[in-house]
Amino acid sequence: MLIEMPRRTEIFGSVKIHELQRVLKIDSGGFENPRAKDIPFEEIKNVLRHFAIIIPVKNEKIHLLDGVLRAIPFDCSIIVVSNSGRETPDTYKMEQDVVKNLHDLTQQEMFIIHQKDPELGFAFYDAGYEDHLLDKDGLVRDGKSEGMIIGMLLAKSLGKDFIGFADADNYIPGSVREYVIDYAAGFCMSESPYSMVRLNWRYKPKVVEDKLYFKKWGRVSETTNKYLNLLISTHTGFETRVVVTGNAGEHALTTKLADLLSYSTGYSIEPYHFVYLFDRFGMGAETITNTDADAANAGIEIFQIETLNPHIHEEKGEEHVNNMLLGSLQTVYHSKLCNDYVKSKVLEELGDILEWGKPKENIIMPSIRKIDIHNFVKMLESNADTFARFERGAIESEGEKTEHLKG
Amino acid sequence: MLIEMPRRTEIFGSVKIHELQRVLKIDSGGFENPRAKDIPFEEIKNVLRHFAIIIPVKNEKIHLLDGVLRAIPFDCSIIVVSNSGRETPDTYKMEQDVVKNLHDLTQQEMFIIHQKDPELGFAFYDAGYEDHLLDKDGLVRDGKSEGMIIGMLLAKSLGKDFIGFADADNYIPGSVREYVIDYAAGFCMSESPYSMVRLNWRYKPKVVEDKLYFKKWGRVSETTNKYLNLLISTHTGFETRVVVTGNAGEHALTTKLADLLSYSTGYSIEPYHFVYLFDRFGMGAETITNTDADAANAGIEIFQIETLNPHIHEEKGEEHVNNMLLGSLQTVYHSKLCNDYVKSKVLEELGDILEWGKPKENIIMPSIRKIDIHNFVKMLESNADTFARFERGAIESEGEKTEHLKG
Repeated sequence: MLIEMPRRTEIFGSVKIHELQRVLKIDSGGFENPRAKDIPFEEIKNVLRHFAIIIPVKNEKIHLLDGVLRAIPFDCSIIVVSNSGRETPDTYKMEQDVVKNLHDLTQQEMFIIHQKDPELGFAFYDAGYEDHLLDKDGLVRDGKSEGMIIGMLLAKSLGKDFIGFADADNYIPGSVREYVIDYAAGFCMSESPYSMVRLNWRYKPKVVEDKLYFKKWGRVSETTNKYLNLLISTHTGFETRVVVTGNAGEHALTTKLADLLSYSTGYSIEPYHFVYLFDRFGMGAETITNTDADAANAGIEIFQIETLNPHIHEEKGEEHVNNMLLGSLQTVYHSKLCNDYVKSKVLEELGDILEWGKPKENIIMPSIRKIDIHNFVKMLESNADTFARFERGAIESEGEKTEHLKG
Repeated sequence: MLIEMPRRTEIFGSVKIHELQRVLKIDSGGFENPRAKDIPFEEIKNVLRHFAIIIPVKNEKIHLLDGVLRAIPFDCSIIVVSNSGRETPDTYKMEQDVVKNLHDLTQQEMFIIHQKDPELGFAFYDAGYEDHLLDKDGLVRDGKSEGMIIGMLLAKSLGKDFIGFADADNYIPGSVREYVIDYAAGFCMSESPYSMVRLNWRYKPKVVEDKLYFKKWGRVSETTNKYLNLLISTHTGFETRVVVTGNAGEHALTTKLADLLSYSTGYSIEPYHFVYLFDRFGMGAETITNTDADAANAGIEIFQIETLNPHIHEEKGEEHVNNMLLGSLQTVYHSKLCNDYVKSKVLEELGDILEWGKPKENIIMPSIRKIDIHNFVKMLESNADTFARFERGAIESEGEKTEHLKG
C-alpha cells in the first residue's frame, strides 16, 4: 500500500494524533517518495495474522452480511456478535448458517455468538463485570457498544494483538476489505504498542447525494470533531482541526490499548475514545497512574486514514442522527477538560435536541483488562447454545462438533 | 482468491463457455474444496505483470477517474484513451494531470492519449486501417469501441499478454480493483492461450434501486443474453442459458484472442464477441481457415465471473439503453447462425425501437493483427502531442521529457 505521510501530528500529553492520511494506492509497487510511505503487502499480512475483525450485527440484510464476510481477508479471524431477532423466522439461525457455509468453503477462523445468550450474562457475572453490561434479567443489554465488548473479549481469547470493527450493513464488500487493509497499514506505521486507526470516508457518492441521511451524518460528524478539537484547543491555546474521525465507527485498536480504555455506550463509544484518552493522558504527569505508566511512556498513537472507497450503507433515519449528536456531545460535556466556555457552546449546539437541563452522563463500561479471559470463554464453550466457533483449516470444525452435541 | 468451479461448460464448436462462477473470497487461505478453486495471490500477480488495463474516458468526473486509477494494482500497466472535451476548460489536460500526478506518486506504468489526436489518424492511415476507424477528416471516429482499439494497440506495443477494460465512471474504486483481480483469476484458470473473462455484477444495491437506469440495463442485458443463447440452442437443439454476460463492458482477453477477433462498434462490441466467435468457430471444421487453426485446436475459453462487489456508476438515460438493445440485437440478427425463427423473434423484440425495415448491420472493424505495432507507436511517440507515457519506476519519466520537448 502507498499511503500519504501525515503532514503533522498533534501531541497532547501522551496522545499523538496524526493528521488525516490518504490512501494513494492499495496495491503499490515499492516506490516511496517524500510525501508517501510504501508498506509491502507482506508486512500487512503479518498484521492480519494477529488481527480479529468484529462484526456487530442486528437484523441487517443477510446478503449484506454474506458480502462483508467474504470480503474480510482469510488471515484475519472473524467474530460476529449478533443481537438479531430470534423469533420466527430466526434471523440469528440464518446468520449462523451464513457463517458456517462460508467456513465450509474458506476454512477461515470464525466465531459467532448471540448477545442475548443467557450464558453470556452468566459469564459476565462470573467475571464480576455484571454491573456494567447486564440488564435486570441478567442478560447483556441491547446496544452495539455492548456487542463490541463481547467481541473484544473473544478476540483476546484468541490471543490477537489487533482488534478491528466492521459494520454488517455495508453495500460494498470491496470497501470492507479496504478498511481491514487500512487498519493493518496503520499498525504497520505505528511506533507504539498502544495505537488506534480510525477511518474517514473519501466522499459521499453522487447516486445517494439526495438522501437526507448522508448529509445529516456529515453534520453530526463535523460537529463532534469541532468540539473534540475545541477540548484540545482550549487547553493548548492553539487552534487545531486535527480530529476528523470523532464518530468513526470504522476503527481498530491494539489489544493493549483496548485493555487500557473504558467504553461509552450508544453512539458515543467512538468519540469517547478521544475524551477518555484526553482526560487520562492529555494533561501531563499529575493524572498518570501506575497502570498507565507504560502507555504514557510509549505514547498513544491515533492514525486517521482517508479510505479510497466511499461508504454506502443502509439508511437509518432522523432519530438515529439526533441520538448520535446528543451521545457524542455528552461525552465532550462531561470531559474533565471541558471548561465553562465549551460547556456553554455544547448547550447552544444541542438546543432543540436537549429539551431541558444538562446533558446526561453516558453509561461508561470500565476496562475489560481484569476479566479472566480463559475462564470467560470456557464458560461459553461449555454452556452457551448460540456460541459457535469454526477453526481455521479444520475439516470438521469444532463448531460443527459443538452443534452436534447440542443438536 | 477462492472461486467457484463452473458447474458446467457449454461447448459450441471450438468455443467453450463456462457457466457463471462466483467469487467466494478475494483473499483466500489456500484451502480448496470440490466446489471451489483456490488461486494463490502470487499466481494472480504473475498475470498482473503481463496485464494492461485500458480505461476509455469521455468527460467522466475527474475524481472518479482518479479513484479508478488508484484502484488498479501497480503490477498492471494502465492505458487511458480519452475522448474528452478539449475546449476551455481542457478536460483532457486535467486527465493528463491526474495521470501524471499519480505516476509521480506511485511510479506505475501509465499511458494516456487523446482519441482525436491527428497523429493517431495518420498512424492508422499509415497502417492501412484508415477505412475502418477514421472519419472524413482523417481523425479517429467518436465511440468507445474505437478507443478500445487504440488501447489494445498500445497494450500490444508493451508486449502484454492480457488486456482488460475498466470504465472511468465507477463510483467504487474497490470494485475496479476486484475486476482486475477477477480477470487475472480467469486467466489463471484458462487452459487455452485464447481466452476471455467477462464479469457479471452480483446485485444492484438497494440505495439505487429506485433509479430507472439500473432496471433498464438489467432488461437489455437479459434480452441480449436470451438471443445469444438462442443462437446456440437453435443449432445444438438443446436449450441453454449459459450466456449471462452478453453486454459485459467489464471484460478482458488474451492478446492472442484480441488479435483473432473483429470488433463491432457502438454498444454492440461486447455481444459481438460471442457472435463473431460463434460464426467463425461455432460450426465445426468447414468454417475454420488456416489462420484460425491454432485457436480452433486450442479452443477458445470464455469465463463468466460474478463479482463480489456491486456496480455503481453514472446514470446514462433512456436513449443509451435503447441504442444498447438495438446495437446488441443487430449483431444477433446478422449472425450467420441466425435463422428465420430467431430473426422474427428479434424483429418482434425490437418492435418500437426499430421503426421500419430490417436491423442495420453494425460497422465492423477487422482484426488488428496485421498492424505493424512498432511503427504505429513510433509515429505516436515522434509526433502525437497528446500522447504521454510514464514509465515504471523511473525518477524522471519519459512522459515528462516528452512534455518538456513540446512545452
